[in-house]
Amino acid sequence: MNGRWHSLRDAIAGKGLTELAKAARNQPPDVALDAVELLPVIPNPDKIVCVGVNYASHASEVGREPPTQPSVFSRLHNTLVGARGQIVRPKASIAFDFEGELAVIIGEHCRHVPRAQALSVVAGYTCFLDASVRDFQKHSVTAGKNFPATGPLGPWMVTTDVIPDPQALTLTTRLNDTVVQHDTTDHMIFDVASIIEYLSTVTWLEPGDVIATGTPDGVGLGRKPPLWMKAGDTVEVEISAIGTLKVNVIDE
Amino acid sequence: MNGRWHSLRDAIAGKGLTELAKAARNQPPDVALDAVELLPVIPNPDKIVCVGVNYASHASEVGREPPTQPSVFSRLHNTLVGARGQIVRPKASIAFDFEGELAVIIGEHCRHVPRAQALSVVAGYTCFLDASVRDFQKHSVTAGKNFPATGPLGPWMVTTDVIPDPQALTLTTRLNDTVVQHDTTDHMIFDVASIIEYLSTVTWLEPGDVIATGTPDGVGLGRKPPLWMKAGDTVEVEISAIGTLKVNVIDE
Repeated sequence: MNGRWHSLRDAIAGKGLTELAKAARNQPPDVALDAVELLPVIPNPDKIVCVGVNYASHASEVGREPPTQPSVFSRLHNTLVGARGQIVRPKASIAFDFEGELAVIIGEHCRHVPRAQALSVVAGYTCFLDASVRDFQKHSVTAGKNFPATGPLGPWMVTTDVIPDPQALTLTTRLNDTVVQHDTTDHMIFDVASIIEYLSTVTWLEPGDVIATGTPDGVGLGRKPPLWMKAGDTVEVEISAIGTLKVNVIDE
Repeated sequence: MNGRWHSLRDAIAGKGLTELAKAARNQPPDVALDAVELLPVIPNPDKIVCVGVNYASHASEVGREPPTQPSVFSRLHNTLVGARGQIVRPKASIAFDFEGELAVIIGEHCRHVPRAQALSVVAGYTCFLDASVRDFQKHSVTAGKNFPATGPLGPWMVTTDVIPDPQALTLTTRLNDTVVQHDTTDHMIFDVASIIEYLSTVTWLEPGDVIATGTPDGVGLGRKPPLWMKAGDTVEVEISAIGTLKVNVIDE
Protein backbone atom coordinates (compact mmCIF):
# COMPACT_ATOMS: atom_id res chain seq x y z
CA MET A 1 0.00 0.00 0.00
CA ASN A 2 2.34 2.69 -1.36
CA GLY A 3 5.08 1.26 0.84
CA ARG A 4 4.18 3.34 3.87
CA TRP A 5 1.22 1.51 5.36
CA HIS A 6 0.64 -2.14 6.05
CA SER A 7 -3.12 -1.93 5.75
CA LEU A 8 -5.98 0.41 4.98
CA ARG A 9 -6.51 0.71 8.72
CA ASP A 10 -2.92 1.96 9.08
CA ALA A 11 -3.39 4.38 6.19
CA ILE A 12 -6.57 5.79 7.73
CA ALA A 13 -4.90 6.15 11.13
CA GLY A 14 -1.89 7.81 9.46
CA LYS A 15 -4.07 10.30 7.58
CA GLY A 16 -2.77 8.86 4.32
CA LEU A 17 -5.96 8.64 2.26
CA THR A 18 -5.40 11.86 0.28
CA GLU A 19 -1.83 10.88 -0.54
CA LEU A 20 -2.91 7.37 -1.57
CA ALA A 21 -5.64 8.76 -3.82
CA LYS A 22 -3.18 11.15 -5.46
CA ALA A 23 -0.65 8.36 -6.01
CA ALA A 24 -3.36 6.17 -7.54
CA ARG A 25 -4.36 8.94 -9.95
CA ASN A 26 -0.76 9.45 -11.09
CA GLN A 27 0.12 5.81 -11.57
CA PRO A 28 -1.91 3.28 -13.57
CA PRO A 29 -2.59 0.04 -11.68
CA ASP A 30 0.05 -2.62 -12.31
CA VAL A 31 -2.33 -5.53 -11.71
CA ALA A 32 -5.87 -6.20 -12.95
CA LEU A 33 -8.68 -5.92 -10.41
CA ASP A 34 -9.85 -9.40 -11.38
CA ALA A 35 -6.41 -10.82 -10.61
CA VAL A 36 -6.31 -9.81 -6.96
CA GLU A 37 -7.89 -11.41 -3.95
CA LEU A 38 -10.00 -8.85 -2.14
CA LEU A 39 -9.67 -8.96 1.64
CA PRO A 40 -12.38 -7.56 3.88
CA VAL A 41 -12.07 -3.76 3.54
CA ILE A 42 -10.70 -3.65 7.09
CA PRO A 43 -9.54 -7.20 7.97
CA ASN A 44 -8.43 -6.30 11.49
CA PRO A 45 -10.74 -3.64 12.91
CA ASP A 46 -10.54 -2.74 16.58
CA LYS A 47 -14.29 -3.22 16.67
CA ILE A 48 -17.25 -4.08 14.47
CA VAL A 49 -20.48 -2.65 15.84
CA CYS A 50 -23.84 -3.28 14.17
CA VAL A 51 -27.12 -1.45 14.63
CA GLY A 52 -30.13 -3.78 14.74
CA VAL A 53 -33.68 -3.05 13.52
CA ASN A 54 -32.74 0.33 12.04
CA TYR A 55 -35.40 0.43 9.30
CA ALA A 56 -39.08 0.54 10.31
CA SER A 57 -39.95 -1.79 7.42
CA HIS A 58 -37.60 -4.46 8.78
CA ALA A 59 -38.75 -4.00 12.38
CA SER A 60 -42.29 -4.59 11.16
CA GLU A 61 -41.51 -7.73 9.13
CA VAL A 62 -39.79 -9.40 12.10
CA GLY A 63 -42.45 -8.30 14.59
CA ARG A 64 -40.42 -5.82 16.59
CA GLU A 65 -41.21 -2.29 17.73
CA PRO A 66 -38.95 0.37 16.18
CA PRO A 67 -36.38 1.16 18.90
CA THR A 68 -36.26 4.55 20.61
CA GLN A 69 -32.46 4.30 21.00
CA PRO A 70 -30.01 2.48 18.72
CA SER A 71 -29.93 -1.25 19.53
CA VAL A 72 -26.39 -2.46 18.98
CA PHE A 73 -24.41 -5.67 18.97
CA SER A 74 -20.85 -6.46 18.02
CA ARG A 75 -19.19 -8.95 15.70
CA LEU A 76 -15.86 -10.73 16.00
CA HIS A 77 -13.26 -10.07 13.31
CA ASN A 78 -13.29 -13.75 12.33
CA THR A 79 -16.77 -13.20 10.89
CA LEU A 80 -15.38 -10.94 8.13
CA VAL A 81 -15.12 -12.08 4.51
CA GLY A 82 -13.78 -10.23 1.44
CA ALA A 83 -15.73 -9.56 -1.75
CA ARG A 84 -15.85 -12.59 -4.12
CA GLY A 85 -15.29 -14.74 -1.02
CA GLN A 86 -17.36 -17.45 0.54
CA ILE A 87 -19.74 -17.24 3.46
CA VAL A 88 -20.28 -20.37 5.52
CA ARG A 89 -23.68 -21.77 6.45
CA PRO A 90 -23.03 -23.51 9.79
CA LYS A 91 -23.80 -27.14 10.49
CA ALA A 92 -25.83 -25.99 13.48
CA SER A 93 -28.73 -24.40 11.56
CA ILE A 94 -30.37 -24.09 8.16
CA ALA A 95 -31.95 -20.74 9.12
CA PHE A 96 -29.19 -18.73 7.40
CA ASP A 97 -30.49 -15.32 6.40
CA PHE A 98 -29.24 -12.32 4.39
CA GLU A 99 -29.22 -8.68 5.55
CA GLY A 100 -27.73 -6.14 3.14
CA GLU A 101 -26.37 -3.04 4.87
CA LEU A 102 -24.39 0.16 4.46
CA ALA A 103 -21.17 0.04 6.50
CA VAL A 104 -19.32 3.07 7.83
CA ILE A 105 -15.54 3.07 8.29
CA ILE A 106 -14.39 5.40 11.05
CA GLY A 107 -11.46 7.74 10.38
CA GLU A 108 -10.57 9.15 13.80
CA HIS A 109 -9.83 8.24 17.40
CA CYS A 110 -12.77 10.00 18.98
CA ARG A 111 -15.36 10.02 21.73
CA HIS A 112 -18.42 12.11 22.60
CA VAL A 113 -18.84 13.32 19.03
CA PRO A 114 -21.88 15.62 18.68
CA ARG A 115 -24.27 14.68 15.88
CA ALA A 116 -23.49 17.89 13.97
CA GLN A 117 -19.81 16.93 13.73
CA ALA A 118 -20.30 13.19 13.39
CA LEU A 119 -19.84 12.81 9.63
CA SER A 120 -16.41 14.48 9.90
CA VAL A 121 -15.02 11.41 11.73
CA VAL A 122 -16.00 9.06 8.87
CA ALA A 123 -13.26 7.78 6.53
CA GLY A 124 -15.62 6.18 4.04
CA TYR A 125 -18.36 3.70 3.26
CA THR A 126 -18.68 0.17 1.95
CA CYS A 127 -21.22 -2.66 1.61
CA PHE A 128 -21.87 -5.24 4.32
CA LEU A 129 -23.78 -8.52 4.38
CA ASP A 130 -24.87 -9.25 7.94
CA ALA A 131 -25.53 -12.97 7.43
CA SER A 132 -27.57 -14.15 10.38
CA VAL A 133 -28.20 -17.55 11.96
CA ARG A 134 -31.78 -17.07 13.06
CA ASP A 135 -32.08 -20.12 15.36
CA PHE A 136 -29.16 -18.87 17.45
CA GLN A 137 -30.32 -15.26 17.26
CA LYS A 138 -33.30 -16.39 19.36
CA HIS A 139 -30.81 -17.28 22.12
CA SER A 140 -29.02 -13.92 21.82
CA VAL A 141 -28.30 -11.52 18.98
CA THR A 142 -24.56 -11.97 19.62
CA ALA A 143 -24.73 -15.74 19.03
CA GLY A 144 -26.76 -15.43 15.83
CA LYS A 145 -24.39 -12.84 14.37
CA ASN A 146 -21.01 -14.35 15.22
CA PHE A 147 -20.59 -17.58 13.31
CA PRO A 148 -17.26 -17.45 11.41
CA ALA A 149 -17.30 -16.16 7.82
CA THR A 150 -20.76 -14.62 7.96
CA GLY A 151 -19.85 -10.93 7.52
CA PRO A 152 -18.71 -9.92 4.01
CA LEU A 153 -17.35 -6.37 3.94
CA GLY A 154 -16.46 -4.80 0.60
CA PRO A 155 -15.65 -4.63 -2.22
CA TRP A 156 -13.74 -1.45 -1.30
CA MET A 157 -14.08 1.76 0.69
CA VAL A 158 -15.46 4.88 -1.02
CA THR A 159 -14.32 8.07 0.68
CA THR A 160 -16.50 10.89 1.95
CA ASP A 161 -15.61 13.26 -0.88
CA VAL A 162 -17.55 10.91 -3.16
CA ILE A 163 -20.33 10.26 -0.62
CA PRO A 164 -20.99 13.50 1.28
CA ASP A 165 -24.47 12.29 2.34
CA PRO A 166 -24.77 8.64 3.47
CA GLN A 167 -28.56 9.01 3.71
CA ALA A 168 -28.89 9.52 -0.07
CA LEU A 169 -27.90 6.01 -1.19
CA THR A 170 -29.85 3.15 -2.72
CA LEU A 171 -29.28 -0.37 -1.36
CA THR A 172 -30.18 -3.55 -3.24
CA THR A 173 -29.65 -7.14 -2.11
CA ARG A 174 -29.89 -9.97 -4.64
CA LEU A 175 -30.08 -13.69 -3.93
CA ASN A 176 -29.23 -15.72 -7.05
CA ASP A 177 -29.82 -12.60 -9.21
CA THR A 178 -33.30 -11.99 -7.76
CA VAL A 179 -33.80 -8.70 -5.93
CA VAL A 180 -34.76 -9.51 -2.31
CA GLN A 181 -34.14 -6.12 -0.66
CA HIS A 182 -34.36 -2.67 -2.21
CA ASP A 183 -34.54 0.55 -0.24
CA THR A 184 -32.92 3.93 0.26
CA THR A 185 -30.78 4.87 3.23
CA ASP A 186 -32.95 7.87 4.09
CA HIS A 187 -35.30 5.30 5.65
CA MET A 188 -32.90 4.53 8.52
CA ILE A 189 -34.47 5.15 11.92
CA PHE A 190 -31.14 6.42 13.26
CA ASP A 191 -29.04 8.07 10.56
CA VAL A 192 -25.26 7.63 10.37
CA ALA A 193 -24.59 10.85 12.30
CA SER A 194 -26.95 9.83 15.12
CA ILE A 195 -25.39 6.36 15.30
CA ILE A 196 -21.89 7.85 15.63
CA GLU A 197 -23.08 10.25 18.33
CA TYR A 198 -24.64 7.34 20.26
CA LEU A 199 -21.74 4.90 19.89
CA SER A 200 -19.18 7.54 20.78
CA THR A 201 -21.14 8.16 24.00
CA VAL A 202 -20.60 4.50 24.90
CA THR A 203 -17.02 3.95 23.77
CA TRP A 204 -13.98 5.26 21.93
CA LEU A 205 -14.17 4.95 18.17
CA GLU A 206 -10.91 4.14 16.39
CA PRO A 207 -9.58 4.52 12.83
CA GLY A 208 -10.80 1.52 10.84
CA ASP A 209 -13.71 0.70 13.11
CA VAL A 210 -16.64 -0.76 11.19
CA ILE A 211 -20.23 0.28 11.91
CA ALA A 212 -23.01 -1.61 10.13
CA THR A 213 -26.14 0.50 9.91
CA GLY A 214 -28.94 -2.07 9.77
CA THR A 215 -31.01 -3.66 7.04
CA PRO A 216 -34.29 -2.77 5.32
CA ASP A 217 -37.14 -5.22 4.83
CA GLY A 218 -37.08 -8.25 2.57
CA VAL A 219 -35.02 -10.62 4.72
CA GLY A 220 -35.69 -14.35 4.55
CA LEU A 221 -37.16 -14.48 8.06
CA GLY A 222 -39.90 -12.03 7.06
CA ARG A 223 -41.19 -14.24 4.21
CA LYS A 224 -43.78 -17.01 4.15
CA PRO A 225 -42.32 -19.55 3.90
CA PRO A 226 -38.92 -18.25 5.15
CA LEU A 227 -36.22 -17.97 2.48
CA TRP A 228 -32.85 -19.27 3.68
CA MET A 229 -29.46 -19.16 1.97
CA LYS A 230 -27.90 -22.53 1.06
CA ALA A 231 -24.68 -23.86 -0.44
CA GLY A 232 -24.23 -22.77 -4.06
CA ASP A 233 -26.23 -19.55 -3.69
CA THR A 234 -24.77 -16.21 -4.70
CA VAL A 235 -25.58 -13.08 -2.71
CA GLU A 236 -24.94 -9.50 -3.76
CA VAL A 237 -25.25 -6.25 -1.84
CA GLU A 238 -25.15 -3.26 -4.19
CA ILE A 239 -25.07 0.33 -2.94
CA SER A 240 -25.17 3.33 -5.27
CA ALA A 241 -21.86 5.24 -5.42
CA ILE A 242 -20.05 2.25 -3.88
CA GLY A 243 -20.50 -0.86 -6.02
CA THR A 244 -21.42 -4.51 -5.51
CA LEU A 245 -20.27 -6.93 -2.84
CA LYS A 246 -20.76 -10.45 -4.19
CA VAL A 247 -20.13 -13.70 -2.31
CA ASN A 248 -20.99 -17.38 -2.60
CA VAL A 249 -22.48 -19.61 0.06
CA ILE A 250 -20.79 -22.86 1.10
CA ASP A 251 -21.61 -25.35 3.84
CA GLU A 252 -19.41 -25.64 6.93
CA MET B 1 7.78 -13.67 31.17
CA ASN B 2 10.74 -16.08 31.29
CA GLY B 3 12.08 -14.39 28.16
CA ARG B 4 10.21 -16.62 25.75
CA TRP B 5 6.72 -15.15 25.73
CA HIS B 6 5.54 -11.58 25.43
CA SER B 7 2.32 -12.17 27.33
CA LEU B 8 0.31 -14.77 29.20
CA ARG B 9 -1.75 -15.21 26.03
CA ASP B 10 1.46 -16.11 24.14
CA ALA B 11 2.54 -18.48 26.90
CA ILE B 12 -0.84 -20.25 26.83
CA ALA B 13 -0.76 -20.51 23.04
CA GLY B 14 2.83 -21.82 23.21
CA LYS B 15 1.94 -24.49 25.80
CA GLY B 16 4.35 -22.85 28.20
CA LEU B 17 2.36 -22.89 31.45
CA THR B 18 4.03 -25.98 32.91
CA GLU B 19 7.49 -24.63 32.15
CA LEU B 20 6.61 -21.24 33.63
CA ALA B 21 5.28 -22.84 36.80
CA LYS B 22 8.43 -24.92 37.16
CA ALA B 23 10.67 -21.88 36.64
CA ALA B 24 8.67 -19.95 39.23
CA ARG B 25 9.09 -22.75 41.78
CA ASN B 26 12.87 -22.84 41.25
CA GLN B 27 13.47 -19.11 41.39
CA PRO B 28 12.25 -16.76 44.10
CA PRO B 29 10.49 -13.65 42.76
CA ASP B 30 12.85 -10.71 42.24
CA VAL B 31 10.15 -8.09 42.79
CA ALA B 32 7.46 -7.76 45.45
CA LEU B 33 3.88 -8.39 44.35
CA ASP B 34 2.86 -5.01 45.81
CA ALA B 35 5.49 -3.27 43.68
CA VAL B 36 4.12 -4.35 40.32
CA GLU B 37 1.23 -2.99 38.32
CA LEU B 38 -1.16 -5.81 37.54
CA LEU B 39 -2.50 -5.76 33.99
CA PRO B 40 -5.76 -7.48 33.12
CA VAL B 41 -4.95 -11.21 33.20
CA ILE B 42 -5.23 -11.26 29.40
CA PRO B 43 -4.94 -7.64 28.20
CA ASN B 44 -5.37 -8.49 24.52
CA PRO B 45 -7.77 -11.42 24.16
CA ASP B 46 -9.08 -12.38 20.74
CA LYS B 47 -12.54 -12.28 22.28
CA ILE B 48 -14.34 -11.67 25.56
CA VAL B 49 -17.67 -13.47 25.68
CA CYS B 50 -20.02 -13.14 28.64
CA VAL B 51 -22.98 -15.30 29.60
CA GLY B 52 -25.96 -13.30 30.83
CA VAL B 53 -28.56 -14.36 33.44
CA ASN B 54 -26.72 -17.59 34.30
CA TYR B 55 -27.91 -17.90 37.91
CA ALA B 56 -31.63 -18.42 38.57
CA SER B 57 -31.43 -16.13 41.62
CA HIS B 58 -30.16 -13.25 39.44
CA ALA B 59 -32.69 -13.92 36.67
CA SER B 60 -35.41 -13.66 39.30
CA GLU B 61 -34.17 -10.42 40.88
CA VAL B 62 -34.05 -8.64 37.49
CA GLY B 63 -37.40 -10.05 36.35
CA ARG B 64 -36.18 -12.38 33.61
CA GLU B 65 -37.02 -15.99 32.84
CA PRO B 66 -34.07 -18.37 33.22
CA PRO B 67 -32.85 -18.94 29.64
CA THR B 68 -33.13 -22.34 27.97
CA GLN B 69 -29.92 -21.73 25.99
CA PRO B 70 -26.93 -19.60 27.05
CA SER B 71 -27.59 -15.91 26.37
CA VAL B 72 -24.30 -14.33 25.37
CA PHE B 73 -22.85 -10.92 24.60
CA SER B 74 -19.32 -9.76 23.95
CA ARG B 75 -17.10 -7.07 25.38
CA LEU B 76 -14.42 -4.95 23.72
CA HIS B 77 -10.86 -5.30 25.03
CA ASN B 78 -10.84 -1.62 26.00
CA THR B 79 -13.29 -2.48 28.78
CA LEU B 80 -10.63 -4.52 30.64
CA VAL B 81 -8.94 -3.27 33.82
CA GLY B 82 -6.25 -4.91 35.96
CA ALA B 83 -6.55 -5.69 39.65
CA ARG B 84 -5.94 -2.64 41.90
CA GLY B 85 -6.99 -0.53 38.93
CA GLN B 86 -9.81 1.93 38.47
CA ILE B 87 -13.17 1.40 36.86
CA VAL B 88 -14.86 4.42 35.30
CA ARG B 89 -18.46 5.45 35.95
CA PRO B 90 -19.48 7.16 32.70
CA LYS B 91 -20.85 10.68 32.47
CA ALA B 92 -23.83 9.25 30.63
CA SER B 93 -25.44 7.41 33.56
CA ILE B 94 -25.42 7.03 37.33
CA ALA B 95 -26.89 3.50 37.07
CA PHE B 96 -23.49 1.84 37.41
CA ASP B 97 -23.88 -1.68 38.78
CA PHE B 98 -21.60 -4.48 39.99
CA GLU B 99 -21.69 -8.11 38.85
CA GLY B 100 -19.05 -10.44 40.32
CA GLU B 101 -18.28 -13.43 38.12
CA LEU B 102 -15.98 -16.39 37.57
CA ALA B 103 -14.01 -15.98 34.32
CA VAL B 104 -12.61 -18.85 32.27
CA ILE B 105 -9.39 -18.46 30.24
CA ILE B 106 -9.32 -20.73 27.20
CA GLY B 107 -6.17 -22.74 26.49
CA GLU B 108 -6.69 -24.14 22.98
CA HIS B 109 -7.67 -23.23 19.44
CA CYS B 110 -10.81 -25.34 19.26
CA ARG B 111 -14.31 -25.67 17.86
CA HIS B 112 -17.20 -28.10 18.34
CA VAL B 113 -15.94 -29.25 21.72
CA PRO B 114 -18.26 -31.84 23.29
CA ARG B 115 -19.31 -31.09 26.86
CA ALA B 116 -17.47 -34.17 28.19
CA GLN B 117 -14.14 -32.82 26.85
CA ALA B 118 -14.82 -29.15 27.45
CA LEU B 119 -12.83 -28.63 30.66
CA SER B 120 -9.71 -29.95 28.90
CA VAL B 121 -9.57 -26.80 26.72
CA VAL B 122 -9.44 -24.49 29.77
CA ALA B 123 -6.12 -22.88 30.74
CA GLY B 124 -7.33 -21.47 34.03
CA TYR B 125 -9.69 -19.28 35.97
CA THR B 126 -9.79 -15.76 37.37
CA CYS B 127 -12.21 -13.20 38.83
CA PHE B 128 -14.22 -10.77 36.75
CA LEU B 129 -16.30 -7.70 37.58
CA ASP B 130 -18.89 -7.17 34.84
CA ALA B 131 -19.63 -3.52 35.67
CA SER B 132 -22.86 -2.62 33.91
CA VAL B 133 -24.44 0.66 32.84
CA ARG B 134 -28.09 -0.22 33.37
CA ASP B 135 -29.66 2.73 31.48
CA PHE B 136 -27.80 1.75 28.33
CA GLN B 137 -28.39 -1.97 28.91
CA LYS B 138 -32.08 -1.19 28.33
CA HIS B 139 -31.13 -0.11 24.79
CA SER B 140 -29.06 -3.27 24.21
CA VAL B 141 -26.95 -5.50 26.40
CA THR B 142 -23.90 -4.70 24.23
CA ALA B 143 -24.19 -0.96 24.91
CA GLY B 144 -24.61 -1.40 28.68
CA LYS B 145 -21.59 -3.70 28.92
CA ASN B 146 -19.07 -1.87 26.73
CA PHE B 147 -18.19 1.43 28.35
CA PRO B 148 -14.39 1.68 28.63
CA ALA B 149 -12.75 0.48 31.86
CA THR B 150 -15.76 -1.42 33.19
CA GLY B 151 -14.37 -4.97 33.11
CA PRO B 152 -11.74 -5.77 35.76
CA LEU B 153 -10.11 -9.18 35.16
CA GLY B 154 -7.72 -10.57 37.75
CA PRO B 155 -5.78 -10.57 39.93
CA TRP B 156 -4.12 -13.59 38.20
CA MET B 157 -4.95 -16.84 36.50
CA VAL B 158 -5.14 -20.05 38.55
CA THR B 159 -4.52 -23.14 36.46
CA THR B 160 -6.74 -26.19 36.19
CA ASP B 161 -4.47 -28.40 38.31
CA VAL B 162 -5.48 -26.19 41.26
CA ILE B 163 -9.12 -25.90 40.17
CA PRO B 164 -10.20 -29.22 38.66
CA ASP B 165 -13.90 -28.42 39.22
CA PRO B 166 -15.04 -24.85 38.43
CA GLN B 167 -18.50 -25.61 39.84
CA ALA B 168 -17.12 -26.06 43.37
CA LEU B 169 -16.11 -22.44 44.04
CA THR B 170 -17.50 -19.75 46.33
CA LEU B 171 -17.93 -16.23 44.94
CA THR B 172 -18.26 -13.12 47.09
CA THR B 173 -18.64 -9.51 45.93
CA ARG B 174 -18.05 -6.65 48.37
CA LEU B 175 -18.91 -3.00 47.90
CA ASN B 176 -17.01 -0.82 50.40
CA ASP B 177 -16.30 -3.92 52.53
CA THR B 178 -19.98 -4.93 52.70
CA VAL B 179 -20.88 -8.29 51.18
CA VAL B 180 -23.38 -7.67 48.35
CA GLN B 181 -23.18 -11.01 46.52
CA HIS B 182 -22.36 -14.44 47.95
CA ASP B 183 -23.04 -17.70 46.15
CA THR B 184 -21.46 -20.92 44.94
CA THR B 185 -20.73 -21.70 41.31
CA ASP B 186 -22.72 -24.93 41.40
CA HIS B 187 -25.76 -22.63 41.05
CA MET B 188 -24.91 -21.69 37.46
CA ILE B 189 -27.74 -22.56 35.04
CA PHE B 190 -25.19 -23.51 32.37
CA ASP B 191 -21.98 -24.88 33.87
CA VAL B 192 -18.55 -24.05 32.43
CA ALA B 193 -18.45 -27.22 30.32
CA SER B 194 -21.89 -26.51 28.81
CA ILE B 195 -20.92 -22.90 28.06
CA ILE B 196 -17.77 -24.03 26.24
CA GLU B 197 -19.76 -26.60 24.25
CA TYR B 198 -22.28 -23.93 23.25
CA LEU B 199 -19.77 -21.19 22.38
CA SER B 200 -17.59 -23.59 20.41
CA THR B 201 -20.66 -24.47 18.34
CA VAL B 202 -20.95 -20.80 17.39
CA THR B 203 -17.30 -19.85 16.88
CA TRP B 204 -13.65 -20.81 17.21
CA LEU B 205 -12.22 -20.43 20.69
CA GLU B 206 -8.62 -19.25 20.90
CA PRO B 207 -5.87 -19.41 23.56
CA GLY B 208 -6.40 -16.51 25.94
CA ASP B 209 -10.09 -16.03 25.15
CA VAL B 210 -12.04 -14.85 28.19
CA ILE B 211 -15.45 -16.26 29.06
CA ALA B 212 -17.37 -14.63 31.90
CA THR B 213 -19.87 -17.03 33.38
CA GLY B 214 -22.60 -14.77 34.78
CA THR B 215 -23.42 -13.33 38.16
CA PRO B 216 -25.54 -14.51 41.12
CA ASP B 217 -28.14 -12.36 42.84
CA GLY B 218 -27.44 -9.28 44.93
CA VAL B 219 -26.74 -6.76 42.13
CA GLY B 220 -27.66 -3.11 42.66
CA LEU B 221 -30.49 -3.22 40.12
CA GLY B 222 -32.26 -5.91 42.14
CA ARG B 223 -32.42 -3.79 45.33
CA LYS B 224 -35.02 -1.29 46.53
CA PRO B 225 -33.85 1.38 46.21
CA PRO B 226 -31.21 0.42 43.61
CA LEU B 227 -27.60 0.49 44.84
CA TRP B 228 -25.23 2.07 42.33
CA MET B 229 -21.43 2.37 42.43
CA LYS B 230 -19.99 5.89 42.64
CA ALA B 231 -16.61 7.58 42.65
CA GLY B 232 -14.53 6.62 45.69
CA ASP B 233 -16.15 3.23 46.15
CA THR B 234 -14.08 0.06 46.36
CA VAL B 235 -15.33 -3.17 44.84
CA GLU B 236 -13.94 -6.64 45.44
CA VAL B 237 -14.70 -9.96 43.77
CA GLU B 238 -13.30 -12.86 45.78
CA ILE B 239 -13.40 -16.45 44.55
CA SER B 240 -12.17 -19.39 46.62
CA ALA B 241 -8.94 -20.94 45.28
CA ILE B 242 -8.30 -17.83 43.19
CA GLY B 243 -8.09 -14.72 45.37
CA THR B 244 -9.51 -11.21 45.39
CA LEU B 245 -9.90 -8.75 42.54
CA LYS B 246 -10.12 -5.26 44.04
CA VAL B 247 -10.68 -2.01 42.16
CA ASN B 248 -11.69 1.56 42.86
CA VAL B 249 -14.42 3.57 41.16
CA ILE B 250 -13.67 6.94 39.56
CA ASP B 251 -15.83 9.26 37.50
CA GLU B 252 -15.22 9.73 33.78
